[in-house]
Amino acid sequence: MADKPSKGLADIIAASTALSDIDGRRGLLFYRGYDIHQLAGSATFEEIAYLLQRGRPPSRGELAGYADEIAAGRTLGPLATACLPDVAGSQSPMEALRSLVSLSGADDPDKDSNAADANIRKAARLTAQQPLLVAAYQAARDGGKVCAAEPALGLAANFLLQMRGTPPAPREAEIFDTCLVLHADHTMNASTFAARVCAATLSDMHSAVVAAIGTLKGPLHGGANEQVMRTLTGIREAAPGDPLGAVEREVRDRLGQGEKIMGFGHRVYKAEDPRATHLREMSGELAQAGGDDTYYRMSRRMEEVVLAEKGLYPNVDFFAATVYHYLGIPTDLFTPVFSVSRMAGWTAHIMEQHADNRLIRPDSEYIGERGLTWTPLDQR
Amino acid sequence: MADKPSKGLADIIAASTALSDIDGRRGLLFYRGYDIHQLAGSATFEEIAYLLQRGRPPSRGELAGYADEIAAGRTLGPLATACLPDVAGSQSPMEALRSLVSLSGADDPDKDSNAADANIRKAARLTAQQPLLVAAYQAARDGGKVCAAEPALGLAANFLLQMRGTPPAPREAEIFDTCLVLHADHTMNASTFAARVCAATLSDMHSAVVAAIGTLKGPLHGGANEQVMRTLTGIREAAPGDPLGAVEREVRDRLGQGEKIMGFGHRVYKAEDPRATHLREMSGELAQAGGDDTYYRMSRRMEEVVLAEKGLYPNVDFFAATVYHYLGIPTDLFTPVFSVSRMAGWTAHIMEQHADNRLIRPDSEYIGERGLTWTPLDQR
Repeated sequence: MADKPSKGLADIIAASTALSDIDGRRGLLFYRGYDIHQLAGSATFEEIAYLLQRGRPPSRGELAGYADEIAAGRTLGPLATACLPDVAGSQSPMEALRSLVSLSGADDPDKDSNAADANIRKAARLTAQQPLLVAAYQAARDGGKVCAAEPALGLAANFLLQMRGTPPAPREAEIFDTCLVLHADHTMNASTFAARVCAATLSDMHSAVVAAIGTLKGPLHGGANEQVMRTLTGIREAAPGDPLGAVEREVRDRLGQGEKIMGFGHRVYKAEDPRATHLREMSGELAQAGGDDTYYRMSRRMEEVVLAEKGLYPNVDFFAATVYHYLGIPTDLFTPVFSVSRMAGWTAHIMEQHADNRLIRPDSEYIGERGLTWTPLDQR
Repeated sequence: MADKPSKGLADIIAASTALSDIDGRRGLLFYRGYDIHQLAGSATFEEIAYLLQRGRPPSRGELAGYADEIAAGRTLGPLATACLPDVAGSQSPMEALRSLVSLSGADDPDKDSNAADANIRKAARLTAQQPLLVAAYQAARDGGKVCAAEPALGLAANFLLQMRGTPPAPREAEIFDTCLVLHADHTMNASTFAARVCAATLSDMHSAVVAAIGTLKGPLHGGANEQVMRTLTGIREAAPGDPLGAVEREVRDRLGQGEKIMGFGHRVYKAEDPRATHLREMSGELAQAGGDDTYYRMSRRMEEVVLAEKGLYPNVDFFAATVYHYLGIPTDLFTPVFSVSRMAGWTAHIMEQHADNRLIRPDSEYIGERGLTWTPLDQR
């Protein structure tokens, strides 16, 4: 028995996986052996979801079949539909997704089976449903209804269409598709690990995904991209005449006080997060195309200062913030958008856990008092 | 970095805790330094929830104040109330609890704070609400409404009252209260660990509890007590004339085929689970009082055979099954009843995690292919 606690389980190998691999020293990420630098811009999110969930890249015929499953799964069942208006009226986006996915479990035809074929179908449905849930929530909180999807478009374009109510430009859809590819999986991140802990009791896929959503909600995990944008917005609003100078002063100030800057550093990367490389480029492209590149230039300045002062690189959350902003996604939907993508990885990890399962039940170190004697209440 | 995977994290110390401690070799369990053998029958569930959540046994005045918090918290908010009929009509008990607790997050006045004082209040509310949710679900799935609680009664008695619709005998309430005490906490069990993984992203208490409920739902964790009862019921129904002989044959048969018997063995106990000792005694008492002790005698026979054949002792789930059955709790509510009790431990662990937090993010071992080259779709 290990007798030293491993706080945060840093450097403890909790599971074996064939889904993704990180070379933190060289700043590399692989999905099933394919370098993310090869995939970004070359593969669609549907291809990556298929790769992760079904083990290899789809043929053209298999991809068409998967696209049909996604189109058929882009629907809300009776329980989620019945509760959506009340949920959207009273829960914040990630709380609402936690509730709506839990409710949607009732609507899945395979809900009572953890068999491999049932899980494969559920994974595709959950992948199809998550963007619809986010868009339907967005419409419902304004008292409206989500517009219909466009069968000719892929998952990324349909999300932008349904979330904004207007069709995206083709290049916008491509960029968003690449964002989804970049966020699809990332080894034992906290939400994926929570999903595996849940699935390892042989609980069902919806329970495990709900656990993951609640975990992604935390500001130390999925909530970081939203905080990056709020920081940028706050600084710009306070100093509209000199946002670049203001961001530099603010960052130096915070670092001087020993504060962390959201969007920088990562437990597993010692070099630049390879996802950040692509997101930086896309943020720059969208900034130029949109005509106001202030947030992009603020981000670049922030990046320079943090690298110079602390030697920290931006992580996946940093440039995702401005990319999503330029794509017209409301700031409080950034973490939900993360969940749209990570659903591919979560569901694949749940299936991997079920396929070779052992209950995940660590030990703990007891640090409290010992040998106390209980005094009954009437003698207290 | 550790280079060997620790499948299931067995023997890995994932956290430090002052909440509970197990001496697996001697078969002992302690809550904050108090031996469970001292607590069973001497302390009420409210005292134990207070002990776990607030650090020490309550004085009489503190316990009265806590009882007031429990009484005030025994209510469903508008979102849970609005969705309850639809949820009860279409989700199984643990799915429904997962949904209803997620929905209830919206109704908590402290929902937007993880501060210590807010968490303390939320923990009491969640502890008060969980038995009500189970009882309200039970009433709603029959199209009815849960009856009012009785202010003079404690949490255990009120649960039996609201779940059955009729007041329990005083001794029934005492026995059920002891069951709740025995299940309140148990170090890093899978659901508690899932709650801590979630809370360690600084996500909120409701998210972490929802993760725990989904994890408890699994048949390798909370689902075991229900399966014990289904096994007993199945054997008795198939051999009403000789249930004791049938149970012995069935167990020998299953063991001979290398099957596991639910309700026996535990990763951390090498001696008898101390909770089983009390549950066995209470099962025997209820069996005698009720006039039909068949299930109790079947359980005893099963225990003898499994001990003789495999050297395995019953765990907490084994005699809990017949105790709950004799208390008139429907079999599919056994795991929900477990959650009523474990809520005390889950919430205490979430607060302990928040108070001294580090993100829980283990490593993984990559076992898939390497160095693959992505072929674009049109060349596939």
